[in-house]
Amino acid sequence: MKKLINSVADVVAESVAGFAAAHADIVRAEFDPMFVVRADAPVAGKVGLVSGGGSGHEPLHIGYVGAGMLDAAVPGAVFTSPPPDPILAATRAVDGGAGVLHIVKNYTGDVLNFETAAELAEMEGLTVRAVTVNDDVAVEDSLYTAGRRGVAGTVLVEKIAGAAAERGDDLDGVAAVAQHVIDNVRTMGVALRACTVPHAGRPSFDLGEDEIEIGIGIHGEPGRHRVPMAGADAITDQLLDAVVADLRVRAGERVLLLVNGMGGTPESELYIVYGHARRRLEDIGVVVERSLVGNFITSLEMQGVSLTLLRLDDGLTALWDAPVHTAALRRGR
Amino acid sequence: MKKLINSVADVVAESVAGFAAAHADIVRAEFDPMFVVRADAPVAGKVGLVSGGGSGHEPLHIGYVGAGMLDAAVPGAVFTSPPPDPILAATRAVDGGAGVLHIVKNYTGDVLNFETAAELAEMEGLTVRAVTVNDDVAVEDSLYTAGRRGVAGTVLVEKIAGAAAERGDDLDGVAAVAQHVIDNVRTMGVALRACTVPHAGRPSFDLGEDEIEIGIGIHGEPGRHRVPMAGADAITDQLLDAVVADLRVRAGERVLLLVNGMGGTPESELYIVYGHARRRLEDIGVVVERSLVGNFITSLEMQGVSLTLLRLDDGLTALWDAPVHTAALRRGR
Repeated sequence: MKKLINSVADVVAESVAGFAAAHADIVRAEFDPMFVVRADAPVAGKVGLVSGGGSGHEPLHIGYVGAGMLDAAVPGAVFTSPPPDPILAATRAVDGGAGVLHIVKNYTGDVLNFETAAELAEMEGLTVRAVTVNDDVAVEDSLYTAGRRGVAGTVLVEKIAGAAAERGDDLDGVAAVAQHVIDNVRTMGVALRACTVPHAGRPSFDLGEDEIEIGIGIHGEPGRHRVPMAGADAITDQLLDAVVADLRVRAGERVLLLVNGMGGTPESELYIVYGHARRRLEDIGVVVERSLVGNFITSLEMQGVSLTLLRLDDGLTALWDAPVHTAALRRGR
Repeated sequence: MKKLINSVADVVAESVAGFAAAHADIVRAEFDPMFVVRADAPVAGKVGLVSGGGSGHEPLHIGYVGAGMLDAAVPGAVFTSPPPDPILAATRAVDGGAGVLHIVKNYTGDVLNFETAAELAEMEGLTVRAVTVNDDVAVEDSLYTAGRRGVAGTVLVEKIAGAAAERGDDLDGVAAVAQHVIDNVRTMGVALRACTVPHAGRPSFDLGEDEIEIGIGIHGEPGRHRVPMAGADAITDQLLDAVVADLRVRAGERVLLLVNGMGGTPESELYIVYGHARRRLEDIGVVVERSLVGNFITSLEMQGVSLTLLRLDDGLTALWDAPVHTAALRRGR
């Protein structure tokens, strides 16, 4: 296994420590238990936003901690849900008196551990609400999930809910905005090559040299089907058609188009996918009003891409455009 | 070959078209000949900055076109210098009457083609100066280079010279700032796994499963030596020791520490490298005043990392901190 790591046991803690040192103007890290929090947390009177999940998807979630997005992120072991204890500690750390929203990707372990942490927090007198992101149209139920998985749409939920919290919406309002994003966002991905989880030491699945997996999960869990390698346009069509059909996007509607790299995909290839998807959308009369192209939720060094559409309205677009200052996403100010 | 492309011949043009569509608020692309230019170019009275080189290193250079950085970038074929014609066209397009600075990475083809373009531009009455970036301490001369290669330091030259041009420095002034960065920046990289150039169809070099190459070039050209795979700290030490020795950084000095991923390296690993390098620098009394961690100059999907130090002074730090608005680097405003 060729990885720039020292020991399998220390991967996440060493990485989080490096991250916090590099971005000390934005965040600080706690290690007992481990979470990353805005340097100025808690922000009095503001709803606190906490997300988290298995590591290996960077920059998600720690890269999105900062003004206008998350107040804290809880990294678990690689591809492993964080336990309730650090989620509880992060919840306490961001409570500014206006309540805390948990943004949870829909994996069974994440959902359970965030629920437990929320119950413990409520017993301490905190007010906690949760939303569950389930944007992956590829499959119902999966290795680690009842219902649909939460994938790249999570980035958009975190940005837009973060903007709502920053402008002063109350807990119900921020939760409603987050749910509105969830209701209008859909994603599907494809893998060309698997990644290797450090504690496994070998690729998480095998794909033939002329084979790709459509609908791959972000942990390499099975998608819809394996098909022969094809050109970028044909692969993009398969992702886009599934997302458009599920979201029921129609002519005249406006969308945010997110093309996300899974970690080992050259940026040039992401823009080829983006270009074709955009043309296809324009052909059916859909307006690509906002775009995001790059590595935003990865699976270590997996080669592949996911395509996400968020149906926009004036309110969502304004929140998307609001200033944000995190390690991985910056806009305005 | 598993790549998200349609045909080998169209990789760069399709990717640039997608890039320009995604970032139409910042850039526009020309295709005959091909270059990417600020949407508001030429900026009257401002020195124009043009860079370019072989594609496959994205976001370099097209991702750095925008306010506060480059005015235009000229992408060649993958790992192939662009010919003089598009460089000349880009030079014309950014001339706002204050002259144009070419920022050239030190590869023989790039240097020759930029020189030819500059001569042609001068014959048309434009004023052109050039600086050559040669920050790679790994080797003197190489497959494509007389002298040292230009690598990740180029990103810092482009940012800081771009800030100098934006504040209104004249052509001599901007060139002097760029040269000051070049004089104070050094880089060394390591590869764990090669990338595959589309028109070659196979990995550009072979490394054993337990072997890495120290001092790798950004086109996979040979570095200093191949050594057995080691832990991240030990690998980081080899890069850092070489850079510190060559730059002669001393206790009390301030630096910018850039840890750059080569395209296929998980972000978590970059932060492990960063964390160790920072501690080592602090141990010898060097102040890490600014940091940059991520994929800034890649080699397609190569797995590896480079480490760059820029010796800072008040002037350079202020220019580094100045607002920038490009696809790949944003700060302020």
